[in-house]
Amino acid sequence: MRKCIATVSVSGTLPEKLSAIAAAGFDGIELFENDLLACPLPPEEIRERVRDLGLLIDLYQPFRDFEAVPDERLAANLRRAEHKFQLMERLGADLLLVCSNVSPRAIGDDDLAAEHLRQLAVRAAEHGIRVAYEALAWGRHVSEYLHAWRIVRTADHPNLGVCLDSFHILSRGSDPIGIEAIPGQKIFFVQLSDAPPLAMDVLQWSRHYRCFPGQGSFDLAGLTIHALNAGYTGPLSLEVFNDVFRQADAARTAVDGMRSLIALEEALDGRTALPPPPEGFAFAELTMADLRPVGELLRALGFTHAGTHHSKPVELWAQGGARILLNAIGDEAELSAIGLQVADPASSVKRAEALLSPVLPRERDPEDARLDAVAAPDGAQMFFCGTEEPPEWLAEFSPFSPAGSAPGVITHIDHVALTQPLHYFDEAELFYRTVLCLRPHERLDMPDPYGLVRSRAMSSPGGAVRMVLNVANVGALDVPWQHVALATGDIMAVARRLREGLGGAGDIVLPIPGNYYDDLAARYDIGPALGQLRELDILYDRDEHGEFLHLYTVTIGRVFFEIVQRIGGYDGYGAANAPVRLAAQHAQHAGAA
Amino acid sequence: MRKCIATVSVSGTLPEKLSAIAAAGFDGIELFENDLLACPLPPEEIRERVRDLGLLIDLYQPFRDFEAVPDERLAANLRRAEHKFQLMERLGADLLLVCSNVSPRAIGDDDLAAEHLRQLAVRAAEHGIRVAYEALAWGRHVSEYLHAWRIVRTADHPNLGVCLDSFHILSRGSDPIGIEAIPGQKIFFVQLSDAPPLAMDVLQWSRHYRCFPGQGSFDLAGLTIHALNAGYTGPLSLEVFNDVFRQADAARTAVDGMRSLIALEEALDGRTALPPPPEGFAFAELTMADLRPVGELLRALGFTHAGTHHSKPVELWAQGGARILLNAIGDEAELSAIGLQVADPASSVKRAEALLSPVLPRERDPEDARLDAVAAPDGAQMFFCGTEEPPEWLAEFSPFSPAGSAPGVITHIDHVALTQPLHYFDEAELFYRTVLCLRPHERLDMPDPYGLVRSRAMSSPGGAVRMVLNVANVGALDVPWQHVALATGDIMAVARRLREGLGGAGDIVLPIPGNYYDDLAARYDIGPALGQLRELDILYDRDEHGEFLHLYTVTIGRVFFEIVQRIGGYDGYGAANAPVRLAAQHAQHAGAA
Repeated sequence: MRKCIATVSVSGTLPEKLSAIAAAGFDGIELFENDLLACPLPPEEIRERVRDLGLLIDLYQPFRDFEAVPDERLAANLRRAEHKFQLMERLGADLLLVCSNVSPRAIGDDDLAAEHLRQLAVRAAEHGIRVAYEALAWGRHVSEYLHAWRIVRTADHPNLGVCLDSFHILSRGSDPIGIEAIPGQKIFFVQLSDAPPLAMDVLQWSRHYRCFPGQGSFDLAGLTIHALNAGYTGPLSLEVFNDVFRQADAARTAVDGMRSLIALEEALDGRTALPPPPEGFAFAELTMADLRPVGELLRALGFTHAGTHHSKPVELWAQGGARILLNAIGDEAELSAIGLQVADPASSVKRAEALLSPVLPRERDPEDARLDAVAAPDGAQMFFCGTEEPPEWLAEFSPFSPAGSAPGVITHIDHVALTQPLHYFDEAELFYRTVLCLRPHERLDMPDPYGLVRSRAMSSPGGAVRMVLNVANVGALDVPWQHVALATGDIMAVARRLREGLGGAGDIVLPIPGNYYDDLAARYDIGPALGQLRELDILYDRDEHGEFLHLYTVTIGRVFFEIVQRIGGYDGYGAANAPVRLAAQHAQHAGAA
Repeated sequence: MRKCIATVSVSGTLPEKLSAIAAAGFDGIELFENDLLACPLPPEEIRERVRDLGLLIDLYQPFRDFEAVPDERLAANLRRAEHKFQLMERLGADLLLVCSNVSPRAIGDDDLAAEHLRQLAVRAAEHGIRVAYEALAWGRHVSEYLHAWRIVRTADHPNLGVCLDSFHILSRGSDPIGIEAIPGQKIFFVQLSDAPPLAMDVLQWSRHYRCFPGQGSFDLAGLTIHALNAGYTGPLSLEVFNDVFRQADAARTAVDGMRSLIALEEALDGRTALPPPPEGFAFAELTMADLRPVGELLRALGFTHAGTHHSKPVELWAQGGARILLNAIGDEAELSAIGLQVADPASSVKRAEALLSPVLPRERDPEDARLDAVAAPDGAQMFFCGTEEPPEWLAEFSPFSPAGSAPGVITHIDHVALTQPLHYFDEAELFYRTVLCLRPHERLDMPDPYGLVRSRAMSSPGGAVRMVLNVANVGALDVPWQHVALATGDIMAVARRLREGLGGAGDIVLPIPGNYYDDLAARYDIGPALGQLRELDILYDRDEHGEFLHLYTVTIGRVFFEIVQRIGGYDGYGAANAPVRLAAQHAQHAGAA
């Protein structure tokens, strides 16, 4: 199917928008009127620019407040339309979007609306133009898509059809199955946008919070299937009003939109089996100028320096199924790459490339294992590794100590937490959902002393791979810390090792305020174990499925480690404790500064 | 009345919050539990810190999900309360806030709720503690303040009363007059917060968008008067959950909160006559390294270089009632000061100081007129000038040309537009409303090619003084441009002067795309005047009261000028044309770069 996008969905001037849209591989655009008005190029030059970029103007929009008006208004509205038809001829556009009237002066009379739209279609036909009528969710009298179709059917003109907009249909809770009542050739256009589940005024929700398919909570594949079942053969077009996208880089937004449509097409096409989600973490890689501080910290956690890369300045640290690579490049410590165990790395790579996440160039020796990585929106590299044990790539590391593969008190990597750039949080969610096949959990707000942090976990179905994405929810809050959470079956043993083995854990474990434990005593009847938690700076959470014990190391560079013990079916990340943890981290940094 | 603020209302760690709150002159705090839990200081030290700062802990909060629970839960809840009573003794706090139960397991039985709260009050009394019960707007069974009072009255214990929170009362549309049904001594606490008019889920609205009194749309003076009429003598306390305040500078937020309470007290006190609003602009002052480009632009607009300051590098440019000062300091041109004509400058200054906007230090010679200024939140200086004509301060300028006081085609300054820092937009609104006595208009969103700009006009009742405050609505959109709008009765004459007098206005007037005029022709039947608008790059708007013609100069440094002609009772600022203007300005800058 043709893939289109409304120019309002990306940032920039009209020429900048067109370039970004063409580069992302779209077939056509909806030309949004404000973008035209603000453009110094005359319509003929815009037409040429669009054509030279290999695009078409599939829709010109919007034309507002036309139908079901008092008689004296109709002439003015037809005159206004005539101007737009002439403009569209100059632009080479042959489909006009007419939104249902929102004016308080509009008349609630379907026959009058149909008669006016018929007159509009008659005039449009003289210019070879067709008119697509759309029910706005906040239309004065027409706000349901089937109501718009009833009026179009009554008007009964070949140049008049409906435009279906997923936001206007799904935001009202209308059932899209009724689309199948509309003959396909009368569906002139389908606009797709998603939206997060916000309980707010639908107009504000629509104008500020729309997002691309797969970034919100609407079932857009379901809606699109109804349109296909009805016989619709026109384009699938993205029309998103989003305050953040308006500020973001146009090229990235356009690629993000295209990725959302490709993923949507996959979901439409029952023949495409989605690849299985990753089965575990192969490794986490940290880069830093000086490996020693993190190496010492890992040793204190029970890790062994298990090998060194034969040609690169990379150390392998291992314990049980947890492998950490320390790469001596860059400056301060940061989490630069994640290895994911997938059943078939080659097909994962192929799928990533199909989803516009090209494989990153990687320098490797001929004898090195082939490991391909793609860039996540925050810049971290995601490697697709196989599931074989020991993994093939381990051969690149000269064994240093065989103890590294012995079972340890740390069993595996539980999750990694990555900080996202403000303008690309929706992009990140879509990337992790589609390219890495993880499922999103609920969005949470975590109070930091200096602002709220918005957080969303993404996980594979069994929880073998979990990632937490964090972002400042407004403005430019600096939340630079990333972390690797390591799973253990005995957090007390890890904590005691940190305390006893190093003569006081003051330098390694993040200290937790006593007030936190007083509150824990009030909330839960934990008994004598509370004293141990307090002594060992271990935090506690509980949900209906189980319990969660966790502690944090101090931060080195941009990175810290968390030790977690899941008891029973606890499926969260201790978000209730995040304010205490974030305050303690700021205190560590204020103390260090 | 005592003035308090909840620690959650300002950013930082607890010690940082306490310092900021004390410095702003508050009498006490509501200690928010999360701030305590995240603080490494033990309760006794917090108590000491609070006392040393001259503060009291007027309230400890919140205690949640206590009442109307199944029997087996009550014991655990009382046990939890006992922990908090002990904590409060250590803190030296004697009032606990209990929010109405939001748990799905809460039982809808008022007698049971009363019995449980009575048991809580009995235990509290043993510690010398009182309990204030508050109806949360989203409480499971108790969400109305009068419902909370009914339960408290049934429980009938001297240590149990109600807490009134303006947000929970007004967000639901409850009439606050019912407060007068509650005996004053049973109102244990009053929490004040305002909120903008957002149609959204009340929980999200409450947790993210509250603001200080006078920054939203609630009638907080009205609510407070009901509490006073009821006989309430306790503190007025600010409790604000605001995503932006959480990131802002704590000291500024605390001062802003105190200013809101001082203004509220003024409104409560019928004896205080509010000062009259400013009657006009005395001048606008621009600073820049090189005066010539702006001087040439002003000359092209018909201004005369009417005088030079006797001791400072400042030029006075005048035309009709419009006076522009060009001050040769700084780097690129920016709008640095505004002179406002007020009836009694001394009393305006006194009031500004009472509202925590201290007079700025100013260097002046003994013979110079005394002109005092305060700093607006964006750093611009606001001078309080008298209304006498010619103004006293004009004597500081040696006459250069008497033509400056002759009537010109420009008659006066219509408005100035100032760019606000992201984190201080609410502060700015309160400053302009209270310190400068301007009234806020509706907030508007204006699409810029690279993001939305939120805009709010503030004006004196007759419109003699108008200011437009602009801010990026999310993230870090760079909207650096400020402007001075000059009023004329004949914009065509000004435009022709610019075109003819300088051999083509290409260098001075911002070019407006032809597509804009094609759309104007479609929307309005302007007739042949349209050709003139198009030729002269004049924009057009219309409302139910009249018409508006305006044009823009190019930008020099951070500043541009607008020429406006208001016809009839048009009261706006041509916001509909803002997207076209902003795109044209970006195009100018892209062309220059």
